[in-house]
Amino acid sequence: MDAAPTLGPFDELARDAAEQEGLISFAGGLPDAQLFPKRQLGAAFLKVLSAPSCAALQYGWPEGSAPLRERIAERLVARGAHVTAADVIVTSGAQQAILIALAVAPRKDTVGVDDECYPGALAIFRGAGASLNPLLAESALYYAMPSMSNPRGQRMPAAERARLLELARAHDGYIIEDDAYEATDFRGETSRPLLAEAPDRVFHVGTFSKTLCPGLRVGWLVAPRAFAQRALERKQNQDLQASSLSQELLVEYLKHEDFDRHLSRLRSRYLKKRKRLEASVREHLPQLRWTSPSGGFSLWLEGDHPLAGEDLLRAAVDEGVAFDPGESFRRAPSPHFALRLCYSAVPERQIERGIIRLARALRKASSG
Amino acid sequence: MDAAPTLGPFDELARDAAEQEGLISFAGGLPDAQLFPKRQLGAAFLKVLSAPSCAALQYGWPEGSAPLRERIAERLVARGAHVTAADVIVTSGAQQAILIALAVAPRKDTVGVDDECYPGALAIFRGAGASLNPLLAESALYYAMPSMSNPRGQRMPAAERARLLELARAHDGYIIEDDAYEATDFRGETSRPLLAEAPDRVFHVGTFSKTLCPGLRVGWLVAPRAFAQRALERKQNQDLQASSLSQELLVEYLKHEDFDRHLSRLRSRYLKKRKRLEASVREHLPQLRWTSPSGGFSLWLEGDHPLAGEDLLRAAVDEGVAFDPGESFRRAPSPHFALRLCYSAVPERQIERGIIRLARALRKASSG
Repeated sequence: MDAAPTLGPFDELARDAAEQEGLISFAGGLPDAQLFPKRQLGAAFLKVLSAPSCAALQYGWPEGSAPLRERIAERLVARGAHVTAADVIVTSGAQQAILIALAVAPRKDTVGVDDECYPGALAIFRGAGASLNPLLAESALYYAMPSMSNPRGQRMPAAERARLLELARAHDGYIIEDDAYEATDFRGETSRPLLAEAPDRVFHVGTFSKTLCPGLRVGWLVAPRAFAQRALERKQNQDLQASSLSQELLVEYLKHEDFDRHLSRLRSRYLKKRKRLEASVREHLPQLRWTSPSGGFSLWLEGDHPLAGEDLLRAAVDEGVAFDPGESFRRAPSPHFALRLCYSAVPERQIERGIIRLARALRKASSG
Repeated sequence: MDAAPTLGPFDELARDAAEQEGLISFAGGLPDAQLFPKRQLGAAFLKVLSAPSCAALQYGWPEGSAPLRERIAERLVARGAHVTAADVIVTSGAQQAILIALAVAPRKDTVGVDDECYPGALAIFRGAGASLNPLLAESALYYAMPSMSNPRGQRMPAAERARLLELARAHDGYIIEDDAYEATDFRGETSRPLLAEAPDRVFHVGTFSKTLCPGLRVGWLVAPRAFAQRALERKQNQDLQASSLSQELLVEYLKHEDFDRHLSRLRSRYLKKRKRLEASVREHLPQLRWTSPSGGFSLWLEGDHPLAGEDLLRAAVDEGVAFDPGESFRRAPSPHFALRLCYSAVPERQIERGIIRLARALRKASSG
């Protein structure tokens, strides 16, 4: 049986919430639409449509646009990886890249994951019938976000990183490195990907969804060279190719715009929101614990008492606020309750009001 | 081991061909770029970017855009199917819809297919380890293009259609109905989909790739209701959702443009090209057999003597012309040689020159 990121028990509630006028939503990991480079993409669109071959609307190769693969490779090289454009497969978002990595990895009966991680990846591993181990237990495959974790927003400590590589090497395991949130580090420090340390062991996954726009559905996969051909065949088998239009838009955008400046603006905007959310949570939800994130889109909050995410979410939606229940992110069930609050897409001036509503819902659900 | 549509033995040759200046290519099933509604899509782009929520660049629901699903359902209803928008899942092209149908179909050890059919589907079935049966033998699953076949460009005869439905019903089988070329029927006659006859047995697959632009990567799946939820979960698991941007553009396009008029223009353009190709083949390749297609993008040509598609393609690329070797389309090996010639994307005035080159290549390869 397949699982799915949001099509679980919370799906119906999430849809009710989305329909509700005036609801403040901390759910979903959506980027701030104010950061979408609309004007630049508009210019890029007119440009790509005027190209005589109109590649943006035609079929393309399964591995993706050559200049886009160049740009992706360049950015990885700048971070220490030995990668060429030929190693990059453009995918329909990071989700598909994870799916392909799992499909071609030689063994996948056990997958090591963080105690909390990206629900889309958990759905893929569970759907394939894998058992989920703690990340630093011996497994056939490991899934990690070393540069910036979701939902916690933390960079992986050096010792853990070394241990992960050692485990993979010692037991002929492979690592899926999900780099989706790398560019969101608030200090603006780039990180050396695991791919740079062990290119023969690492499936490296990235995306433009968190940095530019998820609606384009463009991500990428760098597979170990021994698996590159099979990964490409699998990509083609899945959907032939990523959107030509999205790829051509990105090529134009990256050619003319200063992407690093965009990322710097993005980080300062998200940092301001994170601070506002932390201040609100500190004031109105003092009973919950969290570690201040050093990047990413969200706060991972934990409580001591048992409370089903569904019950809290129902109460919250009644109060006009939504969040992601912690259960979706967990490798294994826990008696303690947790939730993810994304500050990324909430207008800054609504953050405190949302947290006041959530505090009210938590009181009701806990006493109910 | 996975197979893949073009990543087989012909891939390298196809890539060489694509790089060659002045080559005339009858390969690949590409639509005519002259038919892409560039101006209309340009207007649509500016419109969707100016929407306050900017849904075109943001995440959307896994099942796709509600108004787009409405438009797709309406067109199916007009052809006799009992479908609502809620039955439609927007996919990243038809390839993904076929993959999802196979994934959720209850049995898939045997798949009945035409003796020649779409290589992308064959790759999916072979990749899943299915045995391929003749279409009208008893199978667990059937894959067919009843409205317009690829590569032959024929509508399925009524008797065969009735037999297929009878087989599926009698042996608890399911049918994947690939409707990709439906709108290309030269007479402009729409057809009643198998979905209308047996909604509980038919996975209906469609796409905008052949009628508007493949670069958008938008197709759809209507699954039998008993499988709808699993199909949606699978869709989400694969890549979360189809491109928001492409979907919003299509909604705008379909709202303001006369799609049926566009289809009518498209048919007359392809019909002219088909006639030109047939005249050229009749004159320069009289030793090959074909049936005049009543729609689609291509001519399926067969010869009596054995000749490997790879050898002919190599000789052809040397002469400055390319095509799709017949082997890619075949359910089972054949001693006779065959090839697919797509007239769709070749400028009309180049068609005869291309066929003269091909005739020269065929002489060389046959004598060599």
